[in-house]
Amino acid sequence: SGLVLVKNPHLDLMEEDVLYHLDLGTKTHNLPAMFGDIKFVCVGGSPKRMRAFAEFMRRELGLPGAGEDVADICAGSDRYAMYRAGPVLSISHGMGIPSISIMLHELIKLLHHAKCRDVTIIRIGTSGGLGIEAGSVVITDTAVDSSFQPRFEQVVLGDVVVRSTELDKDLAEELLACSRDIPDFPTLIGHTMCTYDFYEGQGRLDGALCSFSSEKKLEYLRRAYDAGVRNIEMESTAFAALCGLCGLKGESCRFHLL
Amino acid sequence: SGLVLVKNPHLDLMEEDVLYHLDLGTKTHNLPAMFGDIKFVCVGGSPKRMRAFAEFMRRELGLPGAGEDVADICAGSDRYAMYRAGPVLSISHGMGIPSISIMLHELIKLLHHAKCRDVTIIRIGTSGGLGIEAGSVVITDTAVDSSFQPRFEQVVLGDVVVRSTELDKDLAEELLACSRDIPDFPTLIGHTMCTYDFYEGQGRLDGALCSFSSEKKLEYLRRAYDAGVRNIEMESTAFAALCGLCGLKGESCRFHLL
Repeated sequence: SGLVLVKNPHLDLMEEDVLYHLDLGTKTHNLPAMFGDIKFVCVGGSPKRMRAFAEFMRRELGLPGAGEDVADICAGSDRYAMYRAGPVLSISHGMGIPSISIMLHELIKLLHHAKCRDVTIIRIGTSGGLGIEAGSVVITDTAVDSSFQPRFEQVVLGDVVVRSTELDKDLAEELLACSRDIPDFPTLIGHTMCTYDFYEGQGRLDGALCSFSSEKKLEYLRRAYDAGVRNIEMESTAFAALCGLCGLKGESCRFHLL
Repeated sequence: SGLVLVKNPHLDLMEEDVLYHLDLGTKTHNLPAMFGDIKFVCVGGSPKRMRAFAEFMRRELGLPGAGEDVADICAGSDRYAMYRAGPVLSISHGMGIPSISIMLHELIKLLHHAKCRDVTIIRIGTSGGLGIEAGSVVITDTAVDSSFQPRFEQVVLGDVVVRSTELDKDLAEELLACSRDIPDFPTLIGHTMCTYDFYEGQGRLDGALCSFSSEKKLEYLRRAYDAGVRNIEMESTAFAALCGLCGLKGESCRFHLL
């Protein structure tokens, strides 16, 4: 049916679903009218970048209001920012798995309540590249954890629930094909490693609060490369797991900055 | 000496330390002049609340500029917000362990570079209470993980490093004594459980993307209560572990909203 699946029978029995961190809700807002025609959701860490992205999309799509400021739909909350450009929603998720996890829970319920169909969700942003040219874009086929395994572990009531972190292969190929139309736009498909920390979790020798052995770091990064990892960031496993859980077509494209 | 310890010998050899997510750095800013006299750092999730807290502190301390808007010291970054009220620094950390972890890494290095002495760091904010009166404040003696253990596990280059999550007992007692001077201000000392997710991690039956058994939830929360847990949130173990690692006197006080 193309609808967004939420495997919680409790949800449809609730009188009201308050999407607290988005400052939206089923009683306070007409979600089908506001969001029913959304087809693409782009998510990224920084609110300013997601605003700039929405403004860019308005111009690209030649929408009315292009060039004007876009309004933050979640202005009543300072947790996330949400902007709209026609059928495209642009939302920030902050940094790290717990932060994107809260946003995705509320976003996916929003898409469910709004009765959206055939939604594609794409994560955009920056990441640290591994053995690739600076300025490359990595399209993730599979998100892996710090042991290079394609899994996301979530503790639910004290038990560990393990979920798959494969992303949509057809969508990855489609995005790769798009990149080929643009000159000098190095793009590749690879695994993305997701860590719980920026400094220690990614072995940043210079910035951490404790010291590491450079040899150990090199050896670890080499093992990651051999396992197919091409970039490192902090949200992809949770993103892939939650998209998979709810039948959303999802993909992650990260730009390797340095 | 009261200085902030950073056990990374590499740090003092660096030509420049860029505190990227705070938009500050050792070459671009005179950190000792800007922050050398800071004695208290208060951290919390929401940027707006941390701004309101700085404005409140300005009024309480009768500082010049009380009543005026406070400036965001990290205005060039949209990751965190930082405000100052005399010897008190007020900083937001977003939601979840990875987000607070990045902020604390850069904050602790900031305090180190600024040569601050005898700094106390207090985490303030809201949390979910467990078997306590609504409106109570919980002062954390020990942060525990979702198995009720006083530990924080951080993956460093593929290896799990386990750190202690005990907080400063004297500071907890001092804060409890302060609360006694205020009428109708229910305050207690207890363990705080830290989870990696707000919905599934804390068994929110109504808001999650999958279903739970209510009996299992009750049984889990009862076990948590019996283990001494009085509130649940998403940052305390990382906060306690990083304060401990760097010799900072730290405490967490959370207000139980509902």
